[in-house]
Amino acid sequence: MIIDCAVYRDGTREDTGQHSDDLAAALAGLGEDDFLWVGMNNPTGDEMNRIGTVLGLHPLAIEDALEAHQRPKIERYKDHLIMSMRMVSYSDDDITTNEVNLFLGANYLLTVRHGGPSLVEGRRRAERRHDALSHGPTAALYSVVDTIVDRYEQVARELETDVEEIETSVFSAEPTSDSTRIYRLKREALEFRRAVVPLKEPVVRFSETAEPPEARPYFRDIADHLGRAAEAIDTIDHLLDNALTAHLAQLSVQQNSDMRKLAAGATIFAIPTAIAGIYGMNFEHMPELSWPVGYPLCLALMGSACVYTYRRFKKSGWL
Amino acid sequence: MIIDCAVYRDGTREDTGQHSDDLAAALAGLGEDDFLWVGMNNPTGDEMNRIGTVLGLHPLAIEDALEAHQRPKIERYKDHLIMSMRMVSYSDDDITTNEVNLFLGANYLLTVRHGGPSLVEGRRRAERRHDALSHGPTAALYSVVDTIVDRYEQVARELETDVEEIETSVFSAEPTSDSTRIYRLKREALEFRRAVVPLKEPVVRFSETAEPPEARPYFRDIADHLGRAAEAIDTIDHLLDNALTAHLAQLSVQQNSDMRKLAAGATIFAIPTAIAGIYGMNFEHMPELSWPVGYPLCLALMGSACVYTYRRFKKSGWL
Amino acid sequence: MIIDCAVYRDGTREDTGQHSDDLAAALAGLGEDDFLWVGMNNPTGDEMNRIGTVLGLHPLAIEDALEAHQRPKIERYKDHLIMSMRMVSYSDDDITTNEVNLFLGANYLLTVRHGGPSLVEGRRRAERRHDALSHGPTAALYSVVDTIVDRYEQVARELETDVEEIETSVFSAEPTSDSTRIYRLKREALEFRRAVVPLKEPVVRFSETAEPPEARPYFRDIADHLGRAAEAIDTIDHLLDNALTAHLAQLSVQQNSDMRKLAAGATIFAIPTAIAGIYGMNFEHMPELSWPVGYPLCLALMGSACVYTYRRFKKSGWL
Amino acid sequence: MIIDCAVYRDGTREDTGQHSDDLAAALAGLGEDDFLWVGMNNPTGDEMNRIGTVLGLHPLAIEDALEAHQRPKIERYKDHLIMSMRMVSYSDDDITTNEVNLFLGANYLLTVRHGGPSLVEGRRRAERRHDALSHGPTAALYSVVDTIVDRYEQVARELETDVEEIETSVFSAEPTSDSTRIYRLKREALEFRRAVVPLKEPVVRFSETAEPPEARPYFRDIADHLGRAAEAIDTIDHLLDNALTAHLAQLSVQQNSDMRKLAAGATIFAIPTAIAGIYGMNFEHMPELSWPVGYPLCLALMGSACVYTYRRFKKSGWL
Amino acid sequence: MIIDCAVYRDGTREDTGQHSDDLAAALAGLGEDDFLWVGMNNPTGDEMNRIGTVLGLHPLAIEDALEAHQRPKIERYKDHLIMSMRMVSYSDDDITTNEVNLFLGANYLLTVRHGGPSLVEGRRRAERRHDALSHGPTAALYSVVDTIVDRYEQVARELETDVEEIETSVFSAEPTSDSTRIYRLKREALEFRRAVVPLKEPVVRFSETAEPPEARPYFRDIADHLGRAAEAIDTIDHLLDNALTAHLAQLSVQQNSDMRKLAAGATIFAIPTAIAGIYGMNFEHMPELSWPVGYPLCLALMGSACVYTYRRFKKSGWL
Repeated sequence: MIIDCAVYRDGTREDTGQHSDDLAAALAGLGEDDFLWVGMNNPTGDEMNRIGTVLGLHPLAIEDALEAHQRPKIERYKDHLIMSMRMVSYSDDDITTNEVNLFLGANYLLTVRHGGPSLVEGRRRAERRHDALSHGPTAALYSVVDTIVDRYEQVARELETDVEEIETSVFSAEPTSDSTRIYRLKREALEFRRAVVPLKEPVVRFSETAEPPEARPYFRDIADHLGRAAEAIDTIDHLLDNALTAHLAQLSVQQNSDMRKLAAGATIFAIPTAIAGIYGMNFEHMPELSWPVGYPLCLALMGSACVYTYRRFKKSGWL
Repeated sequence: MIIDCAVYRDGTREDTGQHSDDLAAALAGLGEDDFLWVGMNNPTGDEMNRIGTVLGLHPLAIEDALEAHQRPKIERYKDHLIMSMRMVSYSDDDITTNEVNLFLGANYLLTVRHGGPSLVEGRRRAERRHDALSHGPTAALYSVVDTIVDRYEQVARELETDVEEIETSVFSAEPTSDSTRIYRLKREALEFRRAVVPLKEPVVRFSETAEPPEARPYFRDIADHLGRAAEAIDTIDHLLDNALTAHLAQLSVQQNSDMRKLAAGATIFAIPTAIAGIYGMNFEHMPELSWPVGYPLCLALMGSACVYTYRRFKKSGWL
Repeated sequence: MIIDCAVYRDGTREDTGQHSDDLAAALAGLGEDDFLWVGMNNPTGDEMNRIGTVLGLHPLAIEDALEAHQRPKIERYKDHLIMSMRMVSYSDDDITTNEVNLFLGANYLLTVRHGGPSLVEGRRRAERRHDALSHGPTAALYSVVDTIVDRYEQVARELETDVEEIETSVFSAEPTSDSTRIYRLKREALEFRRAVVPLKEPVVRFSETAEPPEARPYFRDIADHLGRAAEAIDTIDHLLDNALTAHLAQLSVQQNSDMRKLAAGATIFAIPTAIAGIYGMNFEHMPELSWPVGYPLCLALMGSACVYTYRRFKKSGWL
Repeated sequence: MIIDCAVYRDGTREDTGQHSDDLAAALAGLGEDDFLWVGMNNPTGDEMNRIGTVLGLHPLAIEDALEAHQRPKIERYKDHLIMSMRMVSYSDDDITTNEVNLFLGANYLLTVRHGGPSLVEGRRRAERRHDALSHGPTAALYSVVDTIVDRYEQVARELETDVEEIETSVFSAEPTSDSTRIYRLKREALEFRRAVVPLKEPVVRFSETAEPPEARPYFRDIADHLGRAAEAIDTIDHLLDNALTAHLAQLSVQQNSDMRKLAAGATIFAIPTAIAGIYGMNFEHMPELSWPVGYPLCLALMGSACVYTYRRFKKSGWL
Repeated sequence: MIIDCAVYRDGTREDTGQHSDDLAAALAGLGEDDFLWVGMNNPTGDEMNRIGTVLGLHPLAIEDALEAHQRPKIERYKDHLIMSMRMVSYSDDDITTNEVNLFLGANYLLTVRHGGPSLVEGRRRAERRHDALSHGPTAALYSVVDTIVDRYEQVARELETDVEEIETSVFSAEPTSDSTRIYRLKREALEFRRAVVPLKEPVVRFSETAEPPEARPYFRDIADHLGRAAEAIDTIDHLLDNALTAHLAQLSVQQNSDMRKLAAGATIFAIPTAIAGIYGMNFEHMPELSWPVGYPLCLALMGSACVYTYRRFKKSGWL
C-alpha cells in the first residue's frame, strides 16, 4: 500500500496523487534536482509491479522488495540501487526486526517496509534539511537510513542494560538459573548482529561513490555508527559468553559449599548416634549403665561432641 | 544414464535422440543461441566418456563428474566450465547430500547427478522463461542452480525448527539428555555448511563474468541466497553451541538442587534417629523412661523436629 | 570551555585571548609553520559551533566532538582531520575512559576532551621539543597522542599485576570464588580493547602520509606502542580465559576431594554403628553379652576398626 | 641411498647407472623434453652433496632435503624448485608422517624421502601416462604428488571412521572415559593438519605458473584434493571438540542420575531404620510392644514403607 | 657496554679499539664490502647516544634499543634498519626472554642485547663463512638471527616434551591437579608466541629486498624456521587447551566413580544396620529372639547380605 507520496522541488514538499498514472506524470514533470518520494507499507505483488513499471525497477529488485527475509545489502542495478535494511526494536528480552527496502534512482526515492515502526521520523528529519534536500533524493535516503541506524544504537544500549541485570544475578549468592536468560539474550544478539553487520561494508563502499559528493561524509558517518553498533553487539556477546562460564563456576562453588554442608551435617549427627549405639548395647557388664550420673553424663558428652564438631566446621568454613 | 535430452531453439524445446551419434548431429545442427540440454543420472564411466567426447570435455572434468565426493566449486576449462554442487535434503535430524555436476558450454548444458531428487523442477522453471532461454544455455543453468539453492534455504528453516525444539527441551525443568541430539544436529550443520559455503565465492566471481551480461544479476541473486543460507547455518551452529553450554549449566543447577534435597532428607531423618538412639540406651537411671507420657512425648518431639526441619528446608528452597 | 589557548611561533608559545574574535585574529596573523593550539574541556554545543566557524570545521566533525561515545578513529575532511581517542585510567579493577577529540588543521590544533585527566603533560612534552614544534602543529599532535598512548601501556601493566593476583588466588588450596573478579577484569579488558585496537590501523595509515615527512617515524612509533598495548590486552584476555577454566578445574578437584572425605567419614562411622547395632539386639542367646570382657572387647574392636579405616583412607589420600 | 635412477626419452624409461659420473653423463645426453628421474631414500649428507653438485642444487635446498622436520612448502630457486611434503600413514589411532622432498629442474626430477612407504606407486602411475611423460618431468612430479595426496584423503576417511566409533561410545549409556581417545585423535588430527594445510596455498600458486601449461589443470586438481583433505580434517577436529563437550554433558547427566540413586537409596533405608529405632526405645509405657501383633505389624509397616518409597522413586525416575 | 668490536675486511676479522673515536676512524677507513661489527650488552643511555652519533642512528631507533620491552619488529630508517628480537631460554616450565636489537647499516652491524645468553655463537658461525662475510654485514646479521631462531625451535621442542609429561599425568588413573601446570605452560607459550610470531611477516618482507640478492634465500629460510616455530607453538597451545578440557573430563569421570563408591558403601552398611535395628526392638512377642540359633542366624544373614551386595556392586563396576 502506498502510504505517502510527494514531489520535492528545491527541497520543498508538494503532495501528489498516489495512482500510478499520477506518479508517472509527476516523474515526467520533475526538474533537475527535483525528486519523487514514495513510501509503501506491506505492498502486494501487484502494487510493487505497478510502481516498478513506473520507476523502471529491475524485476529482481522488485522480487527482493516483496520477500520478507532479505539479507541487509546494497545492490546496484543499471540506473538505480536497492538498499535492504532491517528496522530493529527491542522489548522484554525480545528483538523484533522488520525489513525496509529503499530504492534510490536519479530522481526518486521509494521506501518499502514490511510492518514495523513508521519511517515518518526519517522523513521529518529530511524535511528539516531543506538545503540538502534541494540536491536530490540522496539526502532523503540519508535521513531515513540515519533514523534506522540511530535505533540500532539505542537497542544496543538497552541490551547492555539487560546484560548488567544478568551480571548482578549471576554473581548473587544464591544458585540462580541464569542460563536461560543468557541463552535468550545471546539469541537476540545474534539476530541483531545479522541486521547490522552485513550492512557496514556496503555502506562504506557506497559512501565512497555517493552522489552528490557532499553526501559522502554523511554516509561515512552512518558506516561509523554501524561500526559502533556492531562493536557494541560484539561486546554484549562476549560478556554473555563470559557470564555463562562464570555462571558455571558459581554453580560449582555453590555445589562445593553444599557438599561440605552435607558432609559436616552427617558428621555432626554421626557422633551422638554412635554413642547412643554403644550405650544401647546389651552387655551385662557395662559399669557406666548403673552409674547414677551415667545418663546425664552421656547426654552431656553427646551435646559437647555436637557443639565441638559444629564449631570446628564453622571455623573451617564448611558450615 | 541419460534421462533427458532436448534441443532448445529460440527457447522452445525439441526432443532429440539419446544416442551419442544423435547428440553429435544435434550439436552440429544448432543455430546461434540454440543449445542442447542433456540430463544424466548415475552415469557409468563409459557413458561419461562417450558424452565427453561428443561435447569435447576435459578428461579431469569427466573424472570429477564420476567421483562422488567432489567439493562444491566452479572450475573453468578452455571452452566449458564445470559447476559441482550438492543437493541437500533433510528429514529426522539427518541431512542427505547428493552431488550434481553441471557442464556449461557455449551451446550445451549437461547436468549429471548422483541419485537424489530429480532436477525436473529446475527444467520446468527454465522452460517457463522462454525469453531468457532463447539467449543460450546460461539461463537454463541459472534455473537449475536456483532450484537447488532454494532447497538450501528450506533445509535451513527446517533445521531452525529443530533447534527450537532442542531449546524447549534444554530449558525444561527435567534433567534431559539433549547433548546427543545437539551433537547430531551440529554434525548435520557441518555437512550442510560443506555443501553451501565453498560455493559462494565462485558464484560471486562467475556472476561478474557470466555471458550474456543480462544473466549476471541473476547469478548475483544466487550468490546472495547462498550467503543467506550460510548465515543461517552459522546462526544454527552458534545456537547449538550455546544450547550445549546452557545444557551443562542446567545440569549443574539440577545437580545442585538434588544434592540439597539429599542433604535435607538426610538431616530430617537424622534427628528422630538420634532421639530414638538416646532412649534406646540402657542406663538404669533414665527418668524419662518411666514417665507414663514419656513415649508419646518422645514421638511428638520426633514428629515436631521432622516437621520443623522440613519447613525450614522448604522455606530456604532446599526441598 | 576553552581551558588553554596559545600561538606557537618558531616553536615558542605566545598566549592569546580566548574569545572567538581573538582566535580569528590570531589565525589570520599566523606566519608559515606557526600555529594556534586551543584546548577545550566539556565544550557546550555553542562553544563548539563558535570555534568550528573560526577554524572552518565540518559540521559532522563538530557533532563528533560533542558526542561522548565516539569510536576511536581518524577521519579526514577536506582541509582538516579529526582524531578521536579515549584516555584510559585504572583503579580498583575499574577502567575509566574519557574521550578526546583532536582536530588537526594546516595551522591549528584543537584538543577537545570530555572530563578525565588533563592533557597538560602532553603540551609540556611538546614545548620541550622546540625544534619539532617550529615545523607546525603535527609535532604538537604527536606529543598529545604519545602521552595518551603511554598511559595505555601503563594501564596494561597494572592489569597484568591484577591478573597475577588472580592466578595466585585461583591456584591456592582453598575453593575461592574468583570467577567474579575474573569476569570483572575481562569486562574491563574488553572496554580497554575498544579504546586501543580500533586506533591502530588509522594511525599506521596516518604515519604513511603525515606532513612533514620527518614526523612519520614518530607516528609509526605510536602505532608500534598501540600494537604493544593491544598485544598486552590480548595476553591478559587469554590469561583470564585460561584462569577461569583452571578455576573450574580447581573447583572440580576440590569437590572430588570433599566427596572422598564425605565417603571416608561415612565409612569410618558406619563400622562402630553396625557393631553397636549388633550388640544392641535382644536375642536371648548371645554369649558375648555375658562375657565380663565383652564390653571392653567390643569397645576395643570399634576403636581399632575406626583407627584402621582412618589409616587406610589417610594412606590412599582420601582423607 | 639412490634407490632408483632412470632416463625418460619420449616418455619411455631407460635405466642408467647410479654413480654421480653416470648421472652427469646422462644429464648431458638428454634431448629436449627428455629428463632424468632419481629416487633417493634416507640419503647421507655426502650423497646429497654429490647429487646436488651434479644437478646444480642450491646449498639451502640440499640442507632442507637432509633435515627431517621440514614444513610442507614449495621453494623456488633460480633454476629449480623444491617441494617438501609429508607422506602420511595411519594405524591404531596413530598418524605417522615421513618427509619427502621433490626437486624439479628443467630436465630432472629428484625425489628424496626419509623412510616411509615407497613412492613406486607414483612412478608406475606416471609411466602409464606415456604421452604426458614425453613433455618433461612435470608430469612425473604430478604423479608422485598425486599419489601422496590420494593417501591424505584415505587417511582422512579412516580418521572419520574412528570418530564415528568415539561417537557411539560417548553416547552409550555407561560413563565411559572417552576423553583419552578423543584427545589422542585430536593430537593426530593436529599433526595431520600440519602435513596438509601449509601445502595448499603453494600448490595453488604453482598450478598457475606450471610448465607446460597443459599440466596446470592437473595441479589445480591436486590443490582441490588438498582442500578436500583439509576440510575433512577441519570437520574431524570440530566433531572431536563437540564430542568432548558432549562427553562432559553425558558425564554430568550420569552423575546426576547416580546422585539421585544415592539419595533414593538413603531414603528407602532411613525409614525402617527410624521405625526400628523407635521400637528399640526403652520406655516403660509403650503399648505397641506388648501387643501380640506388634512385631509382625511393625515388620509389615517397615516393608510397606520401603515398597512405597521405592515405587515413588521409580515412578519419578530417580531409581 | 661495548663487549666486542671488530672490522671485517674481505671476510676477515681485525680487532679495533672500542672508543667512539676509534669507531669513527674505523668506519672512515672501510673499503667497499668491508664493515664494522660492534656488540653491546646492557648499554647505558650515554653509550647508546655516543655510538648512535658515530653510526648516524635515528633518535627513535636509539630509544628503542634502550627500552627493554620492545615488540619484535624490523623498522627501516633512511640509511639503516633496526631489527628487534627476543632471545628465548627455557628451564623448569619457565621461559625467559631477553631483548636483542640489531642495527644494520651499509657498512656496519651493531648488536645490542639486554642480558641473556651471549651472541658469540652467531659471530662464530658468521666467521666460518668467509666468503659470505666478504660481501658486507648482511651475512653477519644472518648468522646472528639464525642462531637466535635456532634456539626458538629448540625451546619449542622442550615445551613439547613438557606437554607430553602433562598428558601422561592427565590420563593417569589418579585425580591430579594438572590445571596449575597446564596454566603455567600456556602462559609461557603465550610469552614465547609474542617473541616469535610478530617477527615472521617483517622477515618475509625483508627477505624480498635484502641486499645483496644472494642473501635473500637465507632470510627466506629464517622466515621458514620462524614459521615452523610459530606452528609448533600453536600446536602446543592447542594441545594444552585440549589437555585442560580432557583434565576436566577426567575429573568428572573420577568424581562419578567416587560417588558410586560412596553410594555402594552406604548401601552395604545400611542392610546389617537395618537388621540389627529390627532385632533391637523391644516387642514382647518376637519369636526369633528366643531361638537358640537366632543370633548366629542373624549374623549369617547380615554377613551374606553384605557379601551379596558387595558382589553386585563389584560386578556392575560401582566398586
